[in-house]
Amino acid sequence: MAASKCFSMGAETLKVPMSLFSLNRQRLMKSLSDNPEVPNTGAVLLLEGGKQETRYCSDHEPEFRQESYFHWLFGVTEADCFGAVEVSSGRVTLFVPRLPPEYAIWMGEIHPPDYFKQKYCVDRVSFVDEIPSVLNEMKPTMLMLLNGVNTDSGNTCKEAYFDGIGKFKSVLNNKLLHPMIMECRVIKTPEEIEVLRYVNQVSSKAHCEVMRAVKPGMLEYQLESLFKHHCYSIGGCRHCSYTCICGTGVNSAVLHYGHAGAPNDRKIEEGDMCLFDMGGEYYCFTSDITCSFPANGKFTPTQKLIYNAVYRASRAVLSAVKPGINWVDMHCLAESAILSALVGMGLLLGNVEDMMRVRMGAVFMPHGLGHFMGCDVHDVGGYPEGTTRSTEPGLKSLRTVRTLQEGMCLTIEPGCYFIACLLDKALSDPSQSCFINKDMLETLRGFGGVRIEDDIIVTSSGAELLTDVPRTVQEIEEWMQNGNKTWGKNN
Amino acid sequence: MAASKCFSMGAETLKVPMSLFSLNRQRLMKSLSDNPEVPNTGAVLLLEGGKQETRYCSDHEPEFRQESYFHWLFGVTEADCFGAVEVSSGRVTLFVPRLPPEYAIWMGEIHPPDYFKQKYCVDRVSFVDEIPSVLNEMKPTMLMLLNGVNTDSGNTCKEAYFDGIGKFKSVLNNKLLHPMIMECRVIKTPEEIEVLRYVNQVSSKAHCEVMRAVKPGMLEYQLESLFKHHCYSIGGCRHCSYTCICGTGVNSAVLHYGHAGAPNDRKIEEGDMCLFDMGGEYYCFTSDITCSFPANGKFTPTQKLIYNAVYRASRAVLSAVKPGINWVDMHCLAESAILSALVGMGLLLGNVEDMMRVRMGAVFMPHGLGHFMGCDVHDVGGYPEGTTRSTEPGLKSLRTVRTLQEGMCLTIEPGCYFIACLLDKALSDPSQSCFINKDMLETLRGFGGVRIEDDIIVTSSGAELLTDVPRTVQEIEEWMQNGNKTWGKNN
Repeated sequence: MAASKCFSMGAETLKVPMSLFSLNRQRLMKSLSDNPEVPNTGAVLLLEGGKQETRYCSDHEPEFRQESYFHWLFGVTEADCFGAVEVSSGRVTLFVPRLPPEYAIWMGEIHPPDYFKQKYCVDRVSFVDEIPSVLNEMKPTMLMLLNGVNTDSGNTCKEAYFDGIGKFKSVLNNKLLHPMIMECRVIKTPEEIEVLRYVNQVSSKAHCEVMRAVKPGMLEYQLESLFKHHCYSIGGCRHCSYTCICGTGVNSAVLHYGHAGAPNDRKIEEGDMCLFDMGGEYYCFTSDITCSFPANGKFTPTQKLIYNAVYRASRAVLSAVKPGINWVDMHCLAESAILSALVGMGLLLGNVEDMMRVRMGAVFMPHGLGHFMGCDVHDVGGYPEGTTRSTEPGLKSLRTVRTLQEGMCLTIEPGCYFIACLLDKALSDPSQSCFINKDMLETLRGFGGVRIEDDIIVTSSGAELLTDVPRTVQEIEEWMQNGNKTWGKNN
Repeated sequence: MAASKCFSMGAETLKVPMSLFSLNRQRLMKSLSDNPEVPNTGAVLLLEGGKQETRYCSDHEPEFRQESYFHWLFGVTEADCFGAVEVSSGRVTLFVPRLPPEYAIWMGEIHPPDYFKQKYCVDRVSFVDEIPSVLNEMKPTMLMLLNGVNTDSGNTCKEAYFDGIGKFKSVLNNKLLHPMIMECRVIKTPEEIEVLRYVNQVSSKAHCEVMRAVKPGMLEYQLESLFKHHCYSIGGCRHCSYTCICGTGVNSAVLHYGHAGAPNDRKIEEGDMCLFDMGGEYYCFTSDITCSFPANGKFTPTQKLIYNAVYRASRAVLSAVKPGINWVDMHCLAESAILSALVGMGLLLGNVEDMMRVRMGAVFMPHGLGHFMGCDVHDVGGYPEGTTRSTEPGLKSLRTVRTLQEGMCLTIEPGCYFIACLLDKALSDPSQSCFINKDMLETLRGFGGVRIEDDIIVTSSGAELLTDVPRTVQEIEEWMQNGNKTWGKNN
């Protein structure tokens, strides 16, 4: 009965069964039970969900988005909740806020606990103010709280806190849970993969719409707006996975363009390259796709050369990924493919292996090849205990150094950019400048950049490509110039 | 020279001159100089702008939106800044963050201080880490910080804080600035009104598009998405002023529908009323518009009766507002107009004045008639010192009790809703139930609600209506059924 409950945004949007979350909990409970440091009986974990905030001192409430660990474990869309799981039994108690009667006037019906019990298929629902008494009943021998550092942000997650927590001081443990739940999140279940497939389909189609709509003379943000509109109105994605990056012309070399200091507000010019890095998000599952293409739908010879350098890297990695392959090697494979292509076009001179030794790849691709993706777009688990971050250019920006396993979800996003400060640095470094055709490089300074970003799931023997957009030069040109065609597996 | 600098999102979007902010500063300096508690020389005010946050522990950065007081004074779109003004001279120093060299790789060009000096027409730009030394040079006799309670949220604003503030302890004052800057924000200048006009035009047109697109069978959020897309792609509004409220059917009686617990995800049915309360935001200037209409474009007799009850209230208030009129009286005027109409349709029986005495109006309109609007959608200054909030139903929800003055910007938003818990309460209260035609009320329980919300500027003799959407039953029906027409003053 419980498993039949689904989340959906209606119409043709995906129905996500609540069993996705019970499976996540089962997996976590299994790994906790297997850990000798966790007591056999009486271990309880408690997570605090995201809070509805107000903006600065005003009463403006930004659109709530659930905290990702909480979402991964419970799938609850409402703010201000807590969740507890008894490790040995797997029994789940959800704690919801006790709402004042006026809530019914302003915010809608006040649902009784049983409504949430049904909606989220949990064993019990109590009010947040009942946490101490409910926990007391559980007689916890260990109360596990989530505390650990996110290796992408360096931020520490917020440990659950409730009035009366002091009484449980003797059984609190905030060390064990974080690495174990993080590890679970690294491997996606078939049910999670289904959601990731869906949000990738929606986002891929939105990218296709955008590519067809781009015309010189438009503002970059008009494409951001179109992308969001497609993802939301067709796909039910109220949020994007991250701020849309709609870099055109020289802005396509700004890796995280689109922020408040550079808000996608440039007018697109004839001859520009576009680099649009955008992903919808469905029920807190993300996507992350970059399409690069000429604004007018027709590659110049130079644009084609740079694009194909990146495309070759993208496909080299796609062919090579499988369980057992190390991600750092994939990064180097991409660098090497790009450098080879730049040698092929005469921009670089010499031996690619020599260039790799002086980190020449990072001059043109300063970011890492890709990252884990899931409930966060830069998903957790990239640097588990025992791994270390390189200090070398390019490699230090890798968001994971792990060896691939079946069920991992990653982006593959090689790029080639002409970033003034990096070019100047390379030119002033004799160990690097010796490889550079300086005259040719000067002609490329205003080029911008190209990134090709796909999302994959590592399978037992290779990779499943989730992204579905025009990728070859020919596909892109045909798609952009022939507005009546449809694109993709699902059309 | 300085005054010629403008903010714009390009194309046909409004150019907002930086002189808007210098005028705001002049007005504030004037009122500070007039205050005997502020020293004649050496008074300096310091504000801290909004910070770029990350979401929970992840590296996801929500789209930055400037803090409203800071925006009102400086018009700066970037995060993590501070601003100081020397009261006697009006001299402005903007403090920008000192960015690490890697910023240029990830986020784009690092602009030198002079770039911001030009962009924002300020006297000096320094780095945030230079605040103590720059302030020292100013030899402040009083360093005024912003600290006070927002009467809409009950939240206290964040006082500026910087490393080294301790050295200025003896001259800090956090009492004087807040009431004075708040008071300045209450009266809009012609330049501010121009921005409010613009964002209202954009939002009005987006509402018109939405009304034309609505069809039974659609999901509520598809209209939210269309609204946002119009505001952004045509009007350059990246943000909305608040979470879109797209209530249909019974949801149209939920005043703040659309939040995470009720995210505009209902399928619209034949025969539904729609209540869409949505407003774009341009350069931190807000709009707030509600349109109510039948989903299928044709009012039923009952829908027409309820709609016209609210319309009558709306127009009664619009005709009555002018300087010197008290807002509480306007609220009562609206209540009385609605109650009269409900008597006219036979839902209520008896004398309207008697009903007013038992706060019958609040049964059908539990919220206040409207609120100040500006850089916040519920703009500051509603309850200045010396005013008090009523404890009576309806009146206690008023966001201001002030007497109107020229230059105030307000919403006028009467509504009539059938909210189960309020109806039940009224029916169980003999002093109210005696007025109710109970059989008729039962037929209206699932009706939902109607709100008509316009934005106005109080002029010297009345009000300027900023909103421009179909409002009468006839206008709405014609607009929704005749898709080829254009609407509005500006078409």
